[in-house]
Amino acid sequence: MNKYTLDFYKKIIEQKLDEFMPVQYPEKIWHSMRYSVLAGGKRLRPAMVLESCRICGGDFEDAIACACALEMLHVQSLIHDDLPCMDNDDLRRGKPTNHKAFDEATAVLAGDALLFFAPEVILKYTPSSVSALDKIEILSKFFDYGGAKRLIAGQIVDIDSENKKIDEKTLDFIHKNKTSALFELAVFCGGKIAKASDTQMEALDSFAKNFGLAFQIYDDIIDIVLTTEELGKTAGKDEKEGKQTYPNMYGLEASYQKLFELIKNAEEILIKNKLESILFKGILEGIKEKVKG
Amino acid sequence: MNKYTLDFYKKIIEQKLDEFMPVQYPEKIWHSMRYSVLAGGKRLRPAMVLESCRICGGDFEDAIACACALEMLHVQSLIHDDLPCMDNDDLRRGKPTNHKAFDEATAVLAGDALLFFAPEVILKYTPSSVSALDKIEILSKFFDYGGAKRLIAGQIVDIDSENKKIDEKTLDFIHKNKTSALFELAVFCGGKIAKASDTQMEALDSFAKNFGLAFQIYDDIIDIVLTTEELGKTAGKDEKEGKQTYPNMYGLEASYQKLFELIKNAEEILIKNKLESILFKGILEGIKEKVKG
Repeated sequence: MNKYTLDFYKKIIEQKLDEFMPVQYPEKIWHSMRYSVLAGGKRLRPAMVLESCRICGGDFEDAIACACALEMLHVQSLIHDDLPCMDNDDLRRGKPTNHKAFDEATAVLAGDALLFFAPEVILKYTPSSVSALDKIEILSKFFDYGGAKRLIAGQIVDIDSENKKIDEKTLDFIHKNKTSALFELAVFCGGKIAKASDTQMEALDSFAKNFGLAFQIYDDIIDIVLTTEELGKTAGKDEKEGKQTYPNMYGLEASYQKLFELIKNAEEILIKNKLESILFKGILEGIKEKVKG
Repeated sequence: MNKYTLDFYKKIIEQKLDEFMPVQYPEKIWHSMRYSVLAGGKRLRPAMVLESCRICGGDFEDAIACACALEMLHVQSLIHDDLPCMDNDDLRRGKPTNHKAFDEATAVLAGDALLFFAPEVILKYTPSSVSALDKIEILSKFFDYGGAKRLIAGQIVDIDSENKKIDEKTLDFIHKNKTSALFELAVFCGGKIAKASDTQMEALDSFAKNFGLAFQIYDDIIDIVLTTEELGKTAGKDEKEGKQTYPNMYGLEASYQKLFELIKNAEEILIKNKLESILFKGILEGIKEKVKG
């Protein structure tokens, strides 16, 4: 029986997220931050931090601060993405979005606060067995991948591409940065905390790149399939927003092919590098099952 | 003749801010970040970083990265403060605000990007003569003072106090956090880079607390005086926005008294601790002259 399941990590992550963010004065900003951070979700990114650490021979508990910080960064991007000036979404995971539950000003500031709270959590709760230099390397990657060069670069190009015809290179840029960057960051943090070898770090990075794009294509396929199944009930999310997706650009058949190819690559990278993860394999197989089913 | 004037530092800071932020793809986000960061201003906070470093015996050039990062953090708070959901300002320093020059989504993301770019600048450009541990201490303070415990705490209480009667403690909280925090952070960075003694660090901190509150009261007095002088032309900024200020709460006379008391304290702290700064003294004397004039 595999102990290190998504549920196992999720429970730990949610407990620590709660613990790391006690409500302080002024309560409103902390309530707003906690509202979105503790609103559930798969916790896939932080779980990837912990599992990457573990399969490289590290103690996953040493990576919990990084995992929580990464989730805070992810949630921050969702809070600001949902704002009226961006996607203008009222619901997120079945609950009112942050600016609906509070107000726009609070949602902007809660997002800002999370961007500064996340790296503080890394510094405060990463154990001293991780050297100052390694902490600095993790933080540098955190700012790099979460900032204007990757995550935010992907977001701005994504917004600018709405209702426009974009080329393949642009779509690739959006996926690599808006989606993949945080998965790459997740495995980097996990590997680094485990003091993984250069070969392992490279393998994790390739794995995350394949996984990230697979995850995006899977998400876009599911949207289309659900929309078709529920035709007449709701419009497809991305269609509605005029956003470009892999299936829109290449067609559904080519998307399936690409998805299976990426999953195969990801699985092979793990095997080739002796990075044995029942969790990662399970997620990849689960994606295959879902799109086939 | 004193070489280390505000103009001297300002020139260096603006050159470095420009140099640290080359335009990259996607250009729009970098143009937006640069638009606000390079829009001028007194550069008081970053100059305080450099001068604090120098008067504690450090090489002010070692503190340039911290100075620029602090200015980016300050500008970030202005970009988001100006948003329609906050102060809804169209102009900042005589130019269209970021969301007017670009759009709201870009302004939100440019602010987010600056929050992550600022600490990256510290890590990338602070010389290796500053130890990894000192860099971590500076970053921790940066996140602490720029985040939900100080700067953002001050902002949220400020917003919630609009058009309301608040008590003295609340006004004090707003001033300490919305205004003073960044001055305290400035002298901390400067002192730390200079490897200042604990006594010097404490003196700098007390100086910044007095300076910060003096600066806020000065700003609020000037607003009232200008409004009175230009009566009929424009309404006072803070009156217009329904914000509470020191003069509103205590009256103009008590505000003058408090201001002079704070300036006296600040000057005495410097003298007592042999922290000789013609720049700091000049700024404090300048404030006195202006409110008297």
